[in-house]
Amino acid sequence: MPQLNENFLKLEKNYLFINIAKKINAYIQESPDKKDSIIRMGIGDVTLPIAQVVVDAVKRGADEMGVKETFRGYEDSGSGYDFLKEAIAGYYHSFGADVRAEEIRISDGAKSDCGNIVDIFGPDNIVLITDPAYPVYVDSNLMSGRRVIYADCTKENGFCAVPDYNVKADLIYLCSPNNPTGAAFTTAQLKAWVDYAKSIGAIIIYDAAYEAFITEPDTPRSIFEIEGARSCAIEICSLSKTAGFTGMRCGYTVIPEELAVTASDGTNVSISALWNRRQGSKFNGVSYPVQCGAAAVFTPEGQQQIKVNLEYYKENARIIGAALDELGIYYTGGKNSPYIWLECPDNMKSWDFFDMLLTQAQVVGTPGAGFGKNGEGFFRLTSFGDRDKTIEAMDRIKKLLAK
Amino acid sequence: MPQLNENFLKLEKNYLFINIAKKINAYIQESPDKKDSIIRMGIGDVTLPIAQVVVDAVKRGADEMGVKETFRGYEDSGSGYDFLKEAIAGYYHSFGADVRAEEIRISDGAKSDCGNIVDIFGPDNIVLITDPAYPVYVDSNLMSGRRVIYADCTKENGFCAVPDYNVKADLIYLCSPNNPTGAAFTTAQLKAWVDYAKSIGAIIIYDAAYEAFITEPDTPRSIFEIEGARSCAIEICSLSKTAGFTGMRCGYTVIPEELAVTASDGTNVSISALWNRRQGSKFNGVSYPVQCGAAAVFTPEGQQQIKVNLEYYKENARIIGAALDELGIYYTGGKNSPYIWLECPDNMKSWDFFDMLLTQAQVVGTPGAGFGKNGEGFFRLTSFGDRDKTIEAMDRIKKLLAK
Repeated sequence: MPQLNENFLKLEKNYLFINIAKKINAYIQESPDKKDSIIRMGIGDVTLPIAQVVVDAVKRGADEMGVKETFRGYEDSGSGYDFLKEAIAGYYHSFGADVRAEEIRISDGAKSDCGNIVDIFGPDNIVLITDPAYPVYVDSNLMSGRRVIYADCTKENGFCAVPDYNVKADLIYLCSPNNPTGAAFTTAQLKAWVDYAKSIGAIIIYDAAYEAFITEPDTPRSIFEIEGARSCAIEICSLSKTAGFTGMRCGYTVIPEELAVTASDGTNVSISALWNRRQGSKFNGVSYPVQCGAAAVFTPEGQQQIKVNLEYYKENARIIGAALDELGIYYTGGKNSPYIWLECPDNMKSWDFFDMLLTQAQVVGTPGAGFGKNGEGFFRLTSFGDRDKTIEAMDRIKKLLAK
Repeated sequence: MPQLNENFLKLEKNYLFINIAKKINAYIQESPDKKDSIIRMGIGDVTLPIAQVVVDAVKRGADEMGVKETFRGYEDSGSGYDFLKEAIAGYYHSFGADVRAEEIRISDGAKSDCGNIVDIFGPDNIVLITDPAYPVYVDSNLMSGRRVIYADCTKENGFCAVPDYNVKADLIYLCSPNNPTGAAFTTAQLKAWVDYAKSIGAIIIYDAAYEAFITEPDTPRSIFEIEGARSCAIEICSLSKTAGFTGMRCGYTVIPEELAVTASDGTNVSISALWNRRQGSKFNGVSYPVQCGAAAVFTPEGQQQIKVNLEYYKENARIIGAALDELGIYYTGGKNSPYIWLECPDNMKSWDFFDMLLTQAQVVGTPGAGFGKNGEGFFRLTSFGDRDKTIEAMDRIKKLLAK
């Protein structure tokens, strides 16, 4: 009889957002008349359509697949077409990050790469994850039986964790601008993490999925803007939030050529070679029409069109922040991020505040406690909704919470 | 410093097809004048374009993504849209397999699911894999440090392995019609495997990626045509060969509701729940336009259009088989499969025959030895090429090998 991977049995039974969906459905069952007034600011999903230049490129790719002369089957490497990798490398260069096209591997999204990258590391690594954090970092490591320790993000440090040289770790997860807190590292803060990782010989797994929301100066969009990062970091990124690809599915992972680890037999092993071996055996590349669409994102026209959507979400974030300012509620994010991370009023617990907002204002957010122990007492709102609904939601919250 | 998953270091450095690509490139370097005469019958990749009804559906899906009212972000479950799961369930019912829509999970391809399904099982399982076999079954288990044992497929059993009740295993990989041998189980042969798996409490991981090539009666297209399979089998399937999706990327995995394993604490654990938990944390679903295209495959028009391509490949397979018959060379496959698995002439080794065909006939095939020890002395040709080139390749082979 097969033995299960019993690490799975130690996990929460459901992924956070599935639990939230269940709560909403239960509420609708109880109060069907409220169904249409629910405003969803919970899951971090975009709502604006894909840019026309991207749609056109996907359709052109689909047309090519329908003609024998331009049909494309398996990619030779499965790592992504050169036209897309070169477009992404050009994007990195535009803000001064040192990344080469051949160091990029295209995937169906940051979640897949975040989840799968752990396969190339052994079970006995100590994994340092910020708390709160995107649940995939924790779950994917617990599934593989690894020991996870936490770096505290709190109100005291503005939800930007600081390295502690007394802590030893082998793998470090960082996400900036952060999901869920919206806080973004300054160059100096991120440099401190790179220095720490290098001093203890750790590898940073850096999630840059929200880089397109950065507006403030001195806030890096890529860890590869930081000196020394090429020998200690992997970067995972995505077009989900940058260009509305949550349903289109395309991301990428950058592993610098020089990133290597000494194996137990003393040989120097390239991390990128291991990742290529993993992906070569377990992944067959991203749909060609989707890669065509992704490449269109990086054209001048594409950049202009996605900017319109990004500005729309940023204005929503400003509206949410202004309402919280009016209420005198502490929050992080909203400036370099689509997320606003607020302190629940009256020392309420996250899930209690979730229930209150759902049942008394029909606004759905995400309980901070779902992201780790330091998330208790906090709550995440997203700016990905409609302008009208965002305004309406904040009006309802203001009415509910005004003293 | 991170500890690597050193199981990776025990693997062959490169995936089989990457080695073949390197050999071809080296030959072209040496003999650039021969470049244009090379006929590729090695990698199992299709060459005919995607059916027009599928292209139209992908484009319609892309258009919907460009309009706010019809835009789709994350799927709620990430398991695939109901419209596609219901289309696939209907397809299963059309040939008498007992599969429900809610038991299907959509993926970006059979390779991903084959590679990732092992995550839900523990490291100490004994894994029984037919030899020869698709390298992903072996590599994905070696990467996780599992013990792999083999069930011999040989000329004596017509390359259809037979269960041996003296062998104990926890997971069993079967592929029918088989890659690389093209041999397909009869109903009785597959029933014998189901009975064996049930008697030893093992789970069969059944790869049905080539089911659309089955033409002979009494040859199951799905393991779920076999009585008893629902309590011992997982089926992984793909549109890659069925509908030319090698570059479009869509597959599916079926886990029956009743498939369960007893955990060490005595609880009964649903395999489908574990797979959903794994995919929920490490996968975010398949591109919406691609799912639209996949659903079009299962419409009456789609089935008619893909049949034209399938018949084209089947006729190629017949041509290859006829040439080998003329030469008096033993082979399996070609009838219910796009693959022809032939015995190398004059007791040649697989890679020697590869080199001979490449350098003396400019025909590329796949050395059987790349699929396991029983593949030594055998060679795989595929019927996925152009008709003219297939005829030309077989003419060259006939000239080369005629005594």
